[in-house]
Amino acid sequence: MVHTLSPAGRDVLPDFSLTDTVRQISADALTKLREMSFDGVGVSRETYGASETAACELVESYARTEGLSTEWDAARNLIIRLPGQDPELPCVATGSHLDSVPEGGNFDGAAGVIAGLAVLIAAKQEKPLSRTMEVYALRGEESAWFGGPCYFGSRALFGELSDDDFQTVHRDGARTLEDCMRSAGADVARLRSGKPLRDPSEMMCWLELHIEQGPVLIARDKPIGIVTGIRGNHRHRKVICYGEAAHSGAVPRWMRKDAVLAMADLMVRIDEHWRVLLEWGEDLVVTSGIVETNAKEHAVSRVPGEVSFALEYRSQDLKTLKSFEALIQSECEQVTANRGVRFELGTPVLTHPATMNSELAAMLEMICEHQRIDYEVLASGAGHDSSVFANAGVPSGMVFVRNDKGSHNPNEAMELSDFFLAAEVLGGAMLASASGKTEYR
Amino acid sequence: MVHTLSPAGRDVLPDFSLTDTVRQISADALTKLREMSFDGVGVSRETYGASETAACELVESYARTEGLSTEWDAARNLIIRLPGQDPELPCVATGSHLDSVPEGGNFDGAAGVIAGLAVLIAAKQEKPLSRTMEVYALRGEESAWFGGPCYFGSRALFGELSDDDFQTVHRDGARTLEDCMRSAGADVARLRSGKPLRDPSEMMCWLELHIEQGPVLIARDKPIGIVTGIRGNHRHRKVICYGEAAHSGAVPRWMRKDAVLAMADLMVRIDEHWRVLLEWGEDLVVTSGIVETNAKEHAVSRVPGEVSFALEYRSQDLKTLKSFEALIQSECEQVTANRGVRFELGTPVLTHPATMNSELAAMLEMICEHQRIDYEVLASGAGHDSSVFANAGVPSGMVFVRNDKGSHNPNEAMELSDFFLAAEVLGGAMLASASGKTEYR
Repeated sequence: MVHTLSPAGRDVLPDFSLTDTVRQISADALTKLREMSFDGVGVSRETYGASETAACELVESYARTEGLSTEWDAARNLIIRLPGQDPELPCVATGSHLDSVPEGGNFDGAAGVIAGLAVLIAAKQEKPLSRTMEVYALRGEESAWFGGPCYFGSRALFGELSDDDFQTVHRDGARTLEDCMRSAGADVARLRSGKPLRDPSEMMCWLELHIEQGPVLIARDKPIGIVTGIRGNHRHRKVICYGEAAHSGAVPRWMRKDAVLAMADLMVRIDEHWRVLLEWGEDLVVTSGIVETNAKEHAVSRVPGEVSFALEYRSQDLKTLKSFEALIQSECEQVTANRGVRFELGTPVLTHPATMNSELAAMLEMICEHQRIDYEVLASGAGHDSSVFANAGVPSGMVFVRNDKGSHNPNEAMELSDFFLAAEVLGGAMLASASGKTEYR
Repeated sequence: MVHTLSPAGRDVLPDFSLTDTVRQISADALTKLREMSFDGVGVSRETYGASETAACELVESYARTEGLSTEWDAARNLIIRLPGQDPELPCVATGSHLDSVPEGGNFDGAAGVIAGLAVLIAAKQEKPLSRTMEVYALRGEESAWFGGPCYFGSRALFGELSDDDFQTVHRDGARTLEDCMRSAGADVARLRSGKPLRDPSEMMCWLELHIEQGPVLIARDKPIGIVTGIRGNHRHRKVICYGEAAHSGAVPRWMRKDAVLAMADLMVRIDEHWRVLLEWGEDLVVTSGIVETNAKEHAVSRVPGEVSFALEYRSQDLKTLKSFEALIQSECEQVTANRGVRFELGTPVLTHPATMNSELAAMLEMICEHQRIDYEVLASGAGHDSSVFANAGVPSGMVFVRNDKGSHNPNEAMELSDFFLAAEVLGGAMLASASGKTEYR
């Protein structure tokens, strides 16, 4: 593959590598994070909980030891800063989140924060660059703790939290996000004002390193992924199919309204459309992760009168999401007509897809080529804080690190050697951006 | 339709009708049963519980008031008896069960016991018949209280209870069937000996009146059903489909092993086979009444790694049950090959189908024709004690009474006028049998 330089003309890439000392600090930090948040099975760093705050504080202590300045914003995001020569210029920002799912893995999120820290420690040894560089340790990226809504820390940056967000209830059923934010020391009144904490124009770009949460880099045997876009999704948390409960032996087929067979019929139709749409070239994944008949009334010898199920579909393309919703609606009508049942689809929660900046992606590719690192260009199926930055108007890019065994579980397996390769690619792009004058917009 | 007489040649049917007095006693008894077992929602008469015993005692008191003799057997079934002129001849037996499901209906079971009582009260006014007539108020027909096993009272009659039955645990989780039987006064040692309480050859026939638990008589607008056979069933209480849990956004379709889509695929295949087999003339109903993803690990944004479901299929024909099991096994293998999942079907619990005696069915039809009662000939989809009698070798017949709103719920709706019609058909068949010499075997 031949790569041409981006129009911005950053043809001279600064050499960037991590010293053994910086590598050791990074490895230590990741180990300490794992130890302090081990829950007996995996790691648990709770969205706006004490374990997440403690993780931020640990990262802050590493930064201060290295002489970097730190700051906590109104959303209690931690920001580490290496000032540039021209503080008026929009900064180069990086980072990721520090929370995890319950019994999750250590690298999901934390790898990106520690990579950013490593880049700033390394850059501090060199002569100052034009632009300030910032590392964000973001709060509350995971959806597991508040049953759906997520990206609280990054959305707070751009004034995007709604009253619904603040009122969303913790999985413990007792506390709202607002309660938890307050306990963590956030300035809720400030956040509720809706005024952004940062103006997107103050950021020249956002770069995020993250473990790949899918199996593609492992399957392709490549250490680095360069992300073209982040899939958005539609989530129907609870579709309900209502049929009619009846005696399983005494009601003939022609008189039944079997909710489970109707659900199965619908799913097979959706699955078949998915298969065809992939062949058609669309970007799409479809999942029904939860299915449950109504435990209050179900029985082995009863025709099921009700079944509920989750339905989630993701795509890089907003139009695909909208069209697929219409297709599902139409299939529900078909199944309803054929089987005498009724579906309550509800309104899906929409997370917008995001497109990564093509110049940043081209630069990341160029760095890999230059350093002879094998890489894969791919879409991110998982959501990331980067989508919030990109959709707020900050030119964004993402580097994936090869990772075995998926994420959201304690078995995630990122090799440190891959992590350092990716951190050097990230650092190269940050330094090139921070030394240049041309914006990506 | 033209009906010819059965080969047994019972061409002269005795006139049989219920007087207003007997009707009043029957209606009173049904009302009292409802009142004494009302649980706030429906009626609860617990298998081998105090409420079931109380119901038997109420029926006994009605029988004694009318001068009928009563007896409790070792399984604490209540037997009401009207002696015939020749006590050496095999008797004519009728009855049904007195237990109900939790929050169930009043007529499911009790209607058959009270109908038998009414026939004996009426017959006692006439000159004695050759054969003794007996009414059984049977214990423990419902499967709801001990999570599956059932027909305890009738199976005890023929020495069919196993150690597994005695050890089966009540839905309260604390007591075994043996404990409950003992509390109800049953002679468990006698039952455990396996020696039948009654020799099937001592019964000339068994006739059972029962509400229809399906909607066919309502749909066909006919008050009476004459049953050709009782469907047996195969029950897989918990089939498990194992796939592979994964991130719902980050794993492409070709790498997924989605347990829910595999389950849906299997169900649609089974449903389609069912449809075709019905057109082929087979008797079959298929139900998956319980479906559940694993709540310990399922999530909206997780490809489901496991789903469990119940699978039950019923047929009058044992061969159909066996063949359908093989077909399901074969479809599981297909889905496994296509989707990389694995099914644990387990060994189904088999309840044998039962065929009703064709001469008895013909006589019941003849009575209906004679009395110009509209009737439907149909299979029973629900299980009944009659299947135990039939499979023990007692020639058996069943009369269904039209009943709206199904059974196993408080809304069952049998009209008393239909009940009296059915009781008269039952009585006609009992008197014809009790006055005749020819056996049905």
